[in-house]
Amino acid sequence: MRRMISDARRKLTPYLTLVVSAATAAAPTGAQSGTPDSSATGWTYESQSARFRVEVVATGFQRPSGLSFLPDGRLLVADRPAGTLSAIDVGSGVVTRIGGVPPVHAKVDGGLLDVLVHPDYTRNGWIYLAYAAELPEGNTTVVDRARLDGDRLVGIERLFAARPAIPNDNHFGCRLVLDRGFLFISLGDRDTRELAQDVASDDGKIIRLREDGTVPRDNPFVKRKGALPEIWSYGHRNPQGLALHPETRELWEDEHGPKGGDEINVIQRGRNYGWPVITYGREYDGRPVGDGRTRQAGMEQPLYYYVPSIAPSGMLFYTGTAFPGWRGNLFIGAMALTHLNRLVADGGRILHEERLLDDRQWRVRVVQQGPDGFIYIGVDSGMVLRLRPVEG
Amino acid sequence: MRRMISDARRKLTPYLTLVVSAATAAAPTGAQSGTPDSSATGWTYESQSARFRVEVVATGFQRPSGLSFLPDGRLLVADRPAGTLSAIDVGSGVVTRIGGVPPVHAKVDGGLLDVLVHPDYTRNGWIYLAYAAELPEGNTTVVDRARLDGDRLVGIERLFAARPAIPNDNHFGCRLVLDRGFLFISLGDRDTRELAQDVASDDGKIIRLREDGTVPRDNPFVKRKGALPEIWSYGHRNPQGLALHPETRELWEDEHGPKGGDEINVIQRGRNYGWPVITYGREYDGRPVGDGRTRQAGMEQPLYYYVPSIAPSGMLFYTGTAFPGWRGNLFIGAMALTHLNRLVADGGRILHEERLLDDRQWRVRVVQQGPDGFIYIGVDSGMVLRLRPVEG
Repeated sequence: MRRMISDARRKLTPYLTLVVSAATAAAPTGAQSGTPDSSATGWTYESQSARFRVEVVATGFQRPSGLSFLPDGRLLVADRPAGTLSAIDVGSGVVTRIGGVPPVHAKVDGGLLDVLVHPDYTRNGWIYLAYAAELPEGNTTVVDRARLDGDRLVGIERLFAARPAIPNDNHFGCRLVLDRGFLFISLGDRDTRELAQDVASDDGKIIRLREDGTVPRDNPFVKRKGALPEIWSYGHRNPQGLALHPETRELWEDEHGPKGGDEINVIQRGRNYGWPVITYGREYDGRPVGDGRTRQAGMEQPLYYYVPSIAPSGMLFYTGTAFPGWRGNLFIGAMALTHLNRLVADGGRILHEERLLDDRQWRVRVVQQGPDGFIYIGVDSGMVLRLRPVEG
Repeated sequence: MRRMISDARRKLTPYLTLVVSAATAAAPTGAQSGTPDSSATGWTYESQSARFRVEVVATGFQRPSGLSFLPDGRLLVADRPAGTLSAIDVGSGVVTRIGGVPPVHAKVDGGLLDVLVHPDYTRNGWIYLAYAAELPEGNTTVVDRARLDGDRLVGIERLFAARPAIPNDNHFGCRLVLDRGFLFISLGDRDTRELAQDVASDDGKIIRLREDGTVPRDNPFVKRKGALPEIWSYGHRNPQGLALHPETRELWEDEHGPKGGDEINVIQRGRNYGWPVITYGREYDGRPVGDGRTRQAGMEQPLYYYVPSIAPSGMLFYTGTAFPGWRGNLFIGAMALTHLNRLVADGGRILHEERLLDDRQWRVRVVQQGPDGFIYIGVDSGMVLRLRPVEG
């Protein structure tokens, strides 16, 4: 079922560059319809700031959840429920399975959650993995690192295991970011909401470690008795996306609210992001969460929020040159209201939102930028696709 | 054709409080369907933060463009193309025509643009009017003030006439705001875009005067040779809404971009808001405006922008108690993508956007808050309506 797209074939396929009618009142933030091209492996879109084609890179996955490029141009894919790691040759579409992946706990929200190639991979060879694991004390989120020997992971090191383990299969998180020697890990509240406000637990937190898993001395709770020193921020519900702002180097995060109230946050040291005390969402039965407050002193407001929920997922700041109109924009996969969310951010605020691919019904779980400047996404129907510019 | 709704009748009309299904993927920012009630003069909505009924207050206008309450509870209505001023008794729906309104130039974008009752009306009796006028030198936007003698305007004073007059009928603006002794006037670029960057012209500017029409000495261009001293900010295309932030007292403005690129701006003294040098919009034929830039040093970014265009109009910060979930929110009428736009603003950023009444196909041109805390709107089908809370 895996479709291979050769460069030769792509060159022979004429792009359809039909201009698609503009958005209607019923879809105010910029809906378009994709026009299928003659090869039936792509669709052409005329969006606000780019004309692009979205095309299949590889299929046959279950739910691609983590994407990270190796310096040789291959794209590593963490397939969450399958618990597998693969490498796609994005030119040919050939997929190679990577061996040596540790066993994952793949029920419900578990599985192989993220993969991250170290920014200095050519020197140190590290690949970071986040996944749900069955430990003797119960299920929890762990982070390991390993190196590749051919197509096999070797020398696996356990860097982190979230405390405490919890007897359910929900809200494991997790995304990884490496920034100048530090490893950031986003962790869900394990559907045990009171833990998000409890700094004696890792759940519902953003964690900051050194790259080797040790705790930096300047973390905010290092000296607080009873608090876990690895915590960087707290009060999170179910973080799904994590990305560094390319200019400010701030850490941005998106998370699922309950019904409504999905958030984008700019993560600052030691801050409390409010869950479950304040939220713009509601219980799934419509009741308020807690006493229904949206603000409280000492708790951060989101940078932006979504009601109704879009179920935001992986997050990317676009820095390439292939799409000049998208430089500096924030892209977020959306799984409930299926689309690719494009946000124009200016310093500490969101200027504009556009919803791309919203006619495709793809649950977009992860979004990354390729070395070619194209945008790669993984969707829950098991495909990895890319957006590439089409000349106007 | 004017419909009168008595209090007695309203009390006899049972409210339908059916819960309407949540938004769909095709209308991501919160579309709902209104449920008509049995009197056929209202619709009930279940929105994100309020359950409300929208009901007809009065009909028979052409395009109500300005709304302002008198201390006696009557609502003044400026009917733009009709060039008439009326007072609605919002309890009974009885409409009284106000006499003595100066002749207006009512072609295309012209007409009676805005009416504003002075905040200290009980002491000074001033009513401010903005309208397009045919002066000996040509068509332009003027601002007068007058007092009511019974149901007739008397003692009209000319406070301002925009310079230069222009031989077309487009982009007159205009909205008025009074703030602690100062009068702010928003003026369109008269479809002569280069004027927006020219501080020797009033077009495409926000003007700041004293309440009596004289120029304050601390205006930014008072000492600049060749500049008009009344200018407060420049680089605007077609401002349609103007409101004071209830806490910061900043002046907020919305304006129409070309195709796409409608903006919300926070107006600061002497600043350049970029039109037509930078914009997120395009020419109506799809070409870029100028060289297509969206940023330039020395020019302000919008606080928020809309692509595709919603055609924003009148603007209100809600400060009432009738809708606790909407306190501090910004409401903007939308005429192209017909709806009432609700924005959650936090200091200098927009956290969230919801589109109310988007099933009604009403071009919402003006929005004001009543002394009852209800929200009053004027729509281009000639109705004045109000949103009132419905118990949940």
